[in-house]
Amino acid sequence: MELLITYDVNTTTPEGERRLRQVAKICEGIGHRVQKSVFEVVCTPSQRLHLEARLQATIDASRDSVRVYHLDRGTFGGAKHLGAAVDAAHHDPLII
Amino acid sequence: MELLITYDVNTTTPEGERRLRQVAKICEGIGHRVQKSVFEVVCTPSQRLHLEARLQATIDASRDSVRVYHLDRGTFGGAKHLGAAVDAAHHDPLII
Repeated sequence: MELLITYDVNTTTPEGERRLRQVAKICEGIGHRVQKSVFEVVCTPSQRLHLEARLQATIDASRDSVRVYHLDRGTFGGAKHLGAAVDAAHHDPLII
Repeated sequence: MELLITYDVNTTTPEGERRLRQVAKICEGIGHRVQKSVFEVVCTPSQRLHLEARLQATIDASRDSVRVYHLDRGTFGGAKHLGAAVDAAHHDPLII
């Protein structure tokens, strides 16, 4: 299945910065980063469950937001890109 | 048609901050904000062309990135949301 993951993590605290790095790291482990907070993921249904569980356990549900769109096969290829080529990461180091 | 618009605007300069506000304002005019830089849009093909042209004219193509995913009808409704309820805007005022 193809998923598009988008996230907003509240980084007004050092703890938030840490969560942001963790969420990014989790997504990097399974997906292809197309923007700072947007990943394209091709995975199995069970991988999806595992991914969502890890993200849920990482975020602060009162401050952060993750959205998971289940796309039809081929949607990634048809995405239109305007502007700069993909500049992968957040500015922070992603090693945690 | 249903579109998902995601964007990264480079805000390291005041000019970038201005572009960010403009991109947000354009998207707010036609879509529903679900994260700071993610909008769900229901529009006609001609509205899509107009939207993409406005975004293209607004961004700095060497620094900013906009992605437009054309989704199948119903994909929005099936999106899974983890965490905080939608907290609409960027922190900056959006009036330009």
